[in-house]
Amino acid sequence: MKLKIKKLTLLEGLNKVSKALSTKNLIPVLSGIKFELHKDKLILTASDNDITIQTFIKLDDKNNMTIEKQGSIIIQGKYILDIVRKLPDEYINIEVVDELKILIYTDNSEFTLNGINEKEYPNINLEKSKNPIKLDQKIFKDIVTQTAFASSTDEAKPVLTGINFNISGNILECNSTDSYRLARKIVNLKELVGENYNIVIPSKNIIEFSRIMGDGDTMINMHIFNNKILFEYDNILFQSRLINGTYPNTSNLIPTDSYLTLVVDLDEFYSVIDRASILTSDREKNIVTLQTDNNKLTIKSYSAEVGRVEEKLIVENKNNENIKISFSARYMMEALKSFNSDKVEIKFVGEIKPIVLKDSNDDSLTQLVLPIRTY
Amino acid sequence: MKLKIKKLTLLEGLNKVSKALSTKNLIPVLSGIKFELHKDKLILTASDNDITIQTFIKLDDKNNMTIEKQGSIIIQGKYILDIVRKLPDEYINIEVVDELKILIYTDNSEFTLNGINEKEYPNINLEKSKNPIKLDQKIFKDIVTQTAFASSTDEAKPVLTGINFNISGNILECNSTDSYRLARKIVNLKELVGENYNIVIPSKNIIEFSRIMGDGDTMINMHIFNNKILFEYDNILFQSRLINGTYPNTSNLIPTDSYLTLVVDLDEFYSVIDRASILTSDREKNIVTLQTDNNKLTIKSYSAEVGRVEEKLIVENKNNENIKISFSARYMMEALKSFNSDKVEIKFVGEIKPIVLKDSNDDSLTQLVLPIRTY
Repeated sequence: MKLKIKKLTLLEGLNKVSKALSTKNLIPVLSGIKFELHKDKLILTASDNDITIQTFIKLDDKNNMTIEKQGSIIIQGKYILDIVRKLPDEYINIEVVDELKILIYTDNSEFTLNGINEKEYPNINLEKSKNPIKLDQKIFKDIVTQTAFASSTDEAKPVLTGINFNISGNILECNSTDSYRLARKIVNLKELVGENYNIVIPSKNIIEFSRIMGDGDTMINMHIFNNKILFEYDNILFQSRLINGTYPNTSNLIPTDSYLTLVVDLDEFYSVIDRASILTSDREKNIVTLQTDNNKLTIKSYSAEVGRVEEKLIVENKNNENIKISFSARYMMEALKSFNSDKVEIKFVGEIKPIVLKDSNDDSLTQLVLPIRTY
Repeated sequence: MKLKIKKLTLLEGLNKVSKALSTKNLIPVLSGIKFELHKDKLILTASDNDITIQTFIKLDDKNNMTIEKQGSIIIQGKYILDIVRKLPDEYINIEVVDELKILIYTDNSEFTLNGINEKEYPNINLEKSKNPIKLDQKIFKDIVTQTAFASSTDEAKPVLTGINFNISGNILECNSTDSYRLARKIVNLKELVGENYNIVIPSKNIIEFSRIMGDGDTMINMHIFNNKILFEYDNILFQSRLINGTYPNTSNLIPTDSYLTLVVDLDEFYSVIDRASILTSDREKNIVTLQTDNNKLTIKSYSAEVGRVEEKLIVENKNNENIKISFSARYMMEALKSFNSDKVEIKFVGEIKPIVLKDSNDDSLTQLVLPIRTY
C-alpha cells in the first residue's frame, strides 16, 4: 500500500470512523483502523463490535490523493489520529514496507508504526437491503434529540435503553421510555414501506451517529435487518446492532382526553422549574409540586434539610379547572427542552395520571411525564 | 440582617469567594459563605482551612444595594450561588427571620433557606502586616504561569508542591521544582524590603488566586507572616497557609556556562517535540532524543511496541559544537510554553548536565530541564 493524501481529507475520514474505536481493547485488533486502498478510493473502517463505521475517500480531480500501490493494513487508531492531526504539512505519505511496517512521512517528519495484517480484522458484513427506508437528515436529527434522552440507562432492562422504531405504511413512530416518562415522535415517510418493522436501536449508538453527521440536509438510507441496522449517509456507513426483545406497547399510555390544559411560555416555565428544583438537586428524583389557581401557577419544593422554594407564574388556563400535582423537575425540564416552539401546552388528566406536553402548532411530538405521589 | 442588592454585584462577590468553599465537608460550616452586613458594606467570607477568601461590597451611589438591617449569617454556599445565578431579576432581597431562616426573594420567587449562626464560623484572622510587599498584577500573573507548573504534585515531598518566594532587598526570586526540572523567575520590586523572606506558597493556592484576579493592572499587596501569606488585591483578601520546611537551595543548580547554544523558533520546536512524543504518550516519562549536526537538529523517539519517529528542524547553532541528549518531552514542552517570546535559546553543558532555556531579550526567566540517561 502506498499513497499520498491531503492531510485534511484524511483527518476528516479518521475522525468519523474513530468514534467506533474500541477503548476497552478486549480485542486488540479493534483498537486499529483498517485502511483499504483500491485503485480509485481509500476505505477506512473501525468497529467496537457494537457499532461499525466505514467511510470512503474517492480519488477526485482536485488532487486529494495520489494512489501509488493498492493494499490493506490495520493501523493503531489513536496513534494515526494523533500523527495526522499534528503534522503541519498539506500532504502526507503513507507506505507499507516489509509487509507490516507503516511509514508515515512528510518533508521533515517520519513515523514508522507497527501495523497489523488486515486478515486479522473481524469479518464485518456491511450489506445493504434492497429497499432502504429514506429519511431526511433534519428529521432524523429531530427524532434523536427529541426522544433519545427519555431512554433508560439501566442495562437491567435492555429494551428500554433503545429507541423503538415502529414502521407501518408511510408512518414512522419513534418511542423512547424509561418507564417514568415517554417521548413519542411520529413522522411521515416520503415513500410507502412494503414491510412493517418494529425494532429497537440502542440510544447511545443512534446519538453517536447523529453527532457524526454534522448539520446539513442529506438523505439517510436505513437498511434494516433482523439483528442490525445500517445507516447510509453521504460517504459514511454506520452499522449498529439492534436490541433483542419486545418493546412495550406504549400506544395506550398517552391519555386522549384532558380536563385542564395550560399554555405556558417554554423558557419562562423551564426557568421556574429549574429554580424550584435548586434545593432538591441532591436527590435523584427532584420532586416539585405544581398548583394552579386559575391563571396563577405556583411551583413549590421542600427539603427538610435545606429549605423551601415558591415560584409564581401567570399562564393561560384554557379550562378554568385547577390541579395540584407533583413530578420530577429533571424529567419535566428535559421534556420541555425537546420542543422547538415558544409555547407549550401542558395537559392534565388527574393527579395520578400522566402529564402530556404538546406543541399546538406541531402534532408530531408528544412528551409524557408521570406524576409522583407525595402523600 | 436585611438588604436588597443588585444580582450581578452579589453574584460577582459570591463567585470570588466560592473558590474557597470546602467540597470535602469535613467541617459542615465551611461549606457555607459568611455574610456580614455592616452599615456601609457587605462582607463575604469562605474558607476551606487551607485558603480563605474575603471580598467586600461597599455601598455606592449607583444604587448597588439598600441596607435595611445589619447582621450576620452563614448561608450554604452551593445553594446561594445557584439561586442568585438563576434568578432573572435585577435586584434580590435577602432577609434573616426567626434568627436562622434566610428569605431570598424577588417579585415571583421566594426561597427559604436554613442558615447557620455566624458564631459557629471558625475565627480566621485576616490581619495585615505593617509593611506589605507591593507587586504589579501582570508580574504576579507571569510568576505564576511561568513557574507553578514545575512544582511537584507528590505530597510525599510537601516543600516541592509550592513556589519558593525568596525576597532580599528589592529582589524577589521565585523557584519551583519537582527535582527533575526547575523554573526560576527573578523580578525587581519597586520598593526595598526591610526584612528578608524565604517562604514556600502552595502552588495550587497561588494558581487559584491568580485565576480569581482576572486580567487588569492593579497593585497586589503581599502580607507575609510566619505560617501564612495574605494577598490584598482590589476588594479581595486571599489568605493561604505556607508550607513548612526548608526549600532546597537551587542557586548552584543552574549552569553558568555552556559549550553549545541553539536558537530555536519556539512554536516550531514545540511542535517537533510534540510530534516526536506521540508514540511515547503512554509512558510517564516520554523520552525523546535530540541530536545536532551543526544547524541540523533531529529529534527521535522509539517504542518497541508502537514504532519510531524522526523529526528534522533547521536551527541556529551559535558554537558549531554538537550534542546528543535525551529528555522528557513533556517537561521540555511545559518549559517552552512559559516563554512569551518567538525565539528561545537552549543551552547545553553536557549530555548529563541540565539543559537551560532562556529568552535572549528577557533575563528574568530561566527554565532548566534535566536530561535522562538512555544507555
